[in-house]
Amino acid sequence: MNNIFSSIPADIPMEICEDLLQNEHIRIERILSQGQSSPPDSWYDQDENEWGLVLKGSGIVVYDDGSQVKLETGDYLNIPAHKKHRVSWTDPDRVTVWLAIFYN
Amino acid sequence: MNNIFSSIPADIPMEICEDLLQNEHIRIERILSQGQSSPPDSWYDQDENEWGLVLKGSGIVVYDDGSQVKLETGDYLNIPAHKKHRVSWTDPDRVTVWLAIFYN
Repeated sequence: MNNIFSSIPADIPMEICEDLLQNEHIRIERILSQGQSSPPDSWYDQDENEWGLVLKGSGIVVYDDGSQVKLETGDYLNIPAHKKHRVSWTDPDRVTVWLAIFYN
Repeated sequence: MNNIFSSIPADIPMEICEDLLQNEHIRIERILSQGQSSPPDSWYDQDENEWGLVLKGSGIVVYDDGSQVKLETGDYLNIPAHKKHRVSWTDPDRVTVWLAIFYN
């Protein structure tokens, strides 16, 4: 057993991604952010679907159609494969803990 | 976008399971418990692996080898397919919110 809120550094100078589980069909990842965002005009274009949940903190996901979603603690969304998206903002004042489930 | 902590009834007379996402490889389920447990000598013996995370609350998972794990908020574990287990206790005084990911 592990705890999803353990081993969170006091400072997150760069986003920290950690695989919690992986097989041929799914990958469960914990992502820690604090103020990081995707570079401008840089889009995630993934072969896998992604189900993402904010466990703590806050972030904004932007899609290439211009729509955007601000996620707070407990908010989750599903991003189909190849739906282009980027993270335009994460809270600079506290750590945001994301749970991301990538799946086929 | 939805919130994992929304639509939680004030009383949970029976466990409430809700599929958040499902395809051929994975199923993401939210489970709400308050004091429920598996019937004595009743074991889950699942064809799928299960990755479970306690988002809020507390529960105890027991395996058929007699070992048991108490999970508090943020604790997660992985239960391989056909590893027999049961939930012997959930907190009667507050709602426990589980995130369960069943996968092949």
